[in-house]
Amino acid sequence: MSVAIYPGSFDPIHRGHLDIIVRAARLFEVLVVGVAHNPTKQPLFGPEERAEMVREAVEGITGVRVETFEGLTVAFARRHGARVIIKGLRATMDFDAEMKMAMMNRRLAPEIETLFLPTSPEYADLSSSLIKEVARLGGDVSALVPPAVVERLVAKVGRSVWTASWNS
Amino acid sequence: MSVAIYPGSFDPIHRGHLDIIVRAARLFEVLVVGVAHNPTKQPLFGPEERAEMVREAVEGITGVRVETFEGLTVAFARRHGARVIIKGLRATMDFDAEMKMAMMNRRLAPEIETLFLPTSPEYADLSSSLIKEVARLGGDVSALVPPAVVERLVAKVGRSVWTASWNS
Amino acid sequence: MSVAIYPGSFDPIHRGHLDIIVRAARLFEVLVVGVAHNPTKQPLFGPEERAEMVREAVEGITGVRVETFEGLTVAFARRHGARVIIKGLRATMDFDAEMKMAMMNRRLAPEIETLFLPTSPEYADLSSSLIKEVARLGGDVSALVPPAVVERLVAKVGRSVWTASWNS
Amino acid sequence: MSVAIYPGSFDPIHRGHLDIIVRAARLFEVLVVGVAHNPTKQPLFGPEERAEMVREAVEGITGVRVETFEGLTVAFARRHGARVIIKGLRATMDFDAEMKMAMMNRRLAPEIETLFLPTSPEYADLSSSLIKEVARLGGDVSALVPPAVVERLVAKVGRSVWTASWNS
Amino acid sequence: MSVAIYPGSFDPIHRGHLDIIVRAARLFEVLVVGVAHNPTKQPLFGPEERAEMVREAVEGITGVRVETFEGLTVAFARRHGARVIIKGLRATMDFDAEMKMAMMNRRLAPEIETLFLPTSPEYADLSSSLIKEVARLGGDVSALVPPAVVERLVAKVGRSVWTASWNS
Amino acid sequence: MSVAIYPGSFDPIHRGHLDIIVRAARLFEVLVVGVAHNPTKQPLFGPEERAEMVREAVEGITGVRVETFEGLTVAFARRHGARVIIKGLRATMDFDAEMKMAMMNRRLAPEIETLFLPTSPEYADLSSSLIKEVARLGGDVSALVPPAVVERLVAKVGRSVWTASWNS
Repeated sequence: MSVAIYPGSFDPIHRGHLDIIVRAARLFEVLVVGVAHNPTKQPLFGPEERAEMVREAVEGITGVRVETFEGLTVAFARRHGARVIIKGLRATMDFDAEMKMAMMNRRLAPEIETLFLPTSPEYADLSSSLIKEVARLGGDVSALVPPAVVERLVAKVGRSVWTASWNS
Repeated sequence: MSVAIYPGSFDPIHRGHLDIIVRAARLFEVLVVGVAHNPTKQPLFGPEERAEMVREAVEGITGVRVETFEGLTVAFARRHGARVIIKGLRATMDFDAEMKMAMMNRRLAPEIETLFLPTSPEYADLSSSLIKEVARLGGDVSALVPPAVVERLVAKVGRSVWTASWNS
Repeated sequence: MSVAIYPGSFDPIHRGHLDIIVRAARLFEVLVVGVAHNPTKQPLFGPEERAEMVREAVEGITGVRVETFEGLTVAFARRHGARVIIKGLRATMDFDAEMKMAMMNRRLAPEIETLFLPTSPEYADLSSSLIKEVARLGGDVSALVPPAVVERLVAKVGRSVWTASWNS
Repeated sequence: MSVAIYPGSFDPIHRGHLDIIVRAARLFEVLVVGVAHNPTKQPLFGPEERAEMVREAVEGITGVRVETFEGLTVAFARRHGARVIIKGLRATMDFDAEMKMAMMNRRLAPEIETLFLPTSPEYADLSSSLIKEVARLGGDVSALVPPAVVERLVAKVGRSVWTASWNS
Repeated sequence: MSVAIYPGSFDPIHRGHLDIIVRAARLFEVLVVGVAHNPTKQPLFGPEERAEMVREAVEGITGVRVETFEGLTVAFARRHGARVIIKGLRATMDFDAEMKMAMMNRRLAPEIETLFLPTSPEYADLSSSLIKEVARLGGDVSALVPPAVVERLVAKVGRSVWTASWNS
Repeated sequence: MSVAIYPGSFDPIHRGHLDIIVRAARLFEVLVVGVAHNPTKQPLFGPEERAEMVREAVEGITGVRVETFEGLTVAFARRHGARVIIKGLRATMDFDAEMKMAMMNRRLAPEIETLFLPTSPEYADLSSSLIKEVARLGGDVSALVPPAVVERLVAKVGRSVWTASWNS
């Protein structure tokens, strides 16, 4: 049985993430989305809330499981018997940092491969941090994240200007 | 009447900014320099002081106005009836982050275009943060910023080693 | 009156080019599309045929003119009284070569500015050379170029496998 | 049964290619190495000779098949029932061109995904064209390609200075 | 007598740094490794402890001296009569930031040149910050740093999972 | 005695090359400029004419010698007892190709190091091929190359529009 993991902070999950999950889920029997809990970082949402938002967003996609994890990504992969780490690669952005991370992960666990899946071009600008910044400044991000995330972002950053719907 | 905005933190304004302002002012009837006030950031200078330094630096350039703003850049553009956001593009540096920002701004306001103006190569290394760091370490930045900025940087970072003049 | 030029080989014009033309035409009173004729290159289509395809594609867009030219781009700009050269910038590709060209053009004509307009992300992969290669290999490029270009590509490269329509 | 293809010119195959093949073969049940035959290009070796060199190099690796193909890569993938195209990604080089190709291939065959596998850093500088150039200039490339390729390169470019062995 | 400096934070020194030191030491009569002390930053190790780890690591390499410094890199270079600043350049990462720093340093001290030495590809992913993060997450970094650094990292981050030896 | 080589095609030499030669000559006792003769390429000027133009341009710079060479760059370096290959690095352009070449040269001659010297920003756009293209199109390149090169370019490409002087 082929297993892959898709690790990240998902603070919060957005449509670019979801695009990768949907496409990767077709390629592997099991895709474990790993929501990283790093005690030295200050995410907007706690690990359980981030995982819950991911779970709601992936509901109905066959073969996808969602879990939080602490520690090394490769250790998380090994616990799940995964031979593959999936990473999305945005057209203009992540290349250097992702290559460095992939090289380091291969040092730590030579039996596990990182495979890069190019993000769909229409999501090339999406990142959780930019979405949070736009939301803080009062921008409408409802087309960029799942509905439950919209509500939680409003609750967190205290503005409620979103009018577009998830389906628009 | 063609209006463009040129947004930034300008913490503080430097010669690379001024180069863009001078050249962009020739292309549009009105160029509104927007000094961003972001309550979650900790700039060295307050928004009014940053705007004041910009105003002194652009004195005498036809068609340039300077204002502070809070919130989304595209909302600021809309308030001024601007169809264009001007961004400088340094030879070796800003491309990825700027493309991402431009894509996001087009999502938020499809009627507004971001136009990139290549920074003159002799200013390709200038950034406010590097200039502040050099000043803190005692380096002479008087050739890189307008005179009033030099004095204010000295006052802020507590060193007064600058000897070169703005005109040299 | 504000005039800009948009120079290129257009061998042939594709939807990424058209996206730039439509958006740039909104920003300037006159946009002159310049179809470069370089005797040392071997384009698939001759300069007049390339200009004709561009003219058909831009029909109905206000303020756009199409001309062939030989020699320096800045000389072409000067003949039209243009102060601006518009270039599209694809998310992942053109940056370095375009910066170099813009710097050289500023040397040759300091009064003319190059402004980069980011290509829409859905066209980030389009280039005339890749489209020609795909067409030669039998791929359907009918969604990537205007209808008249489809027919001419079929006639040139001798395959007629295209089935998608321009409107789909 | 999971099938992936690994397309390329392989003119000739080198150790960087082999590294990708060995690692990708572990991830899929069948890996079809596709040796592209493009009538408009002038490779050093004919398609059959290139395929033969690949076959010799991959002998003994489970699940790997080698075939020549003409036409679109995605058509080749479809003929083999492959849902995945594997491409190696060298640390400093291929990113932009490969992203563009991957986007175009997704247009042509949305059901097929391109997955990028980072090349091992010790092969990051290897490319068939650089190896051919070094060989032409009399450099020893015997550590960079399989033994049978060494002999054929010597025969083609007419120098026989190689002294290092494949195993060293 | 030719003198070069090799400045950095070395928080802590790793094998990529050591690779540059060994190779640069062969090219200059004296190589002064400068351990930067920047009061506005929060390194994991104090400047003296960082310098001590560097000294232990470079023991036995001819012509290498280690010193801490505060203030501008070019001022440190001048104090040592150095005409050259050596910087390592990793295949995928540092280029833009390093070019910017080199340009600024040339402004501040035109008589001093920055020379970039490409990092060996097997160390292209190493950086002090990534190594510290891996160590914090319980990953084995003993192959990436000198032995004395391993012990100190264990003491600092409170995990002792390292099992590999420096010589392996 | 410290010896470095500076290899290239120099077809023809331009001010960016000269900038590197002047600065590198200060760092080494002997700098051998190597004019590469590659029988499989079609330069505009023959190897002897290219070397002659370089010799005229470097006249009066202490410690610089000019020679043509065929074959591997590292073999040329070894013949001169050079431990260093100097390469200029333009802000926006050469990084990937140069890193790849440097890695390959280290494979071929591990005792020789490539050192990159950043091109002065005002020459970041200069390349021999772009200068030749501009000259062919009738552009004034007299400020970009030494005087003798101007005359020879005029003679070769058959236009004589240059009016600016080398000293301007």
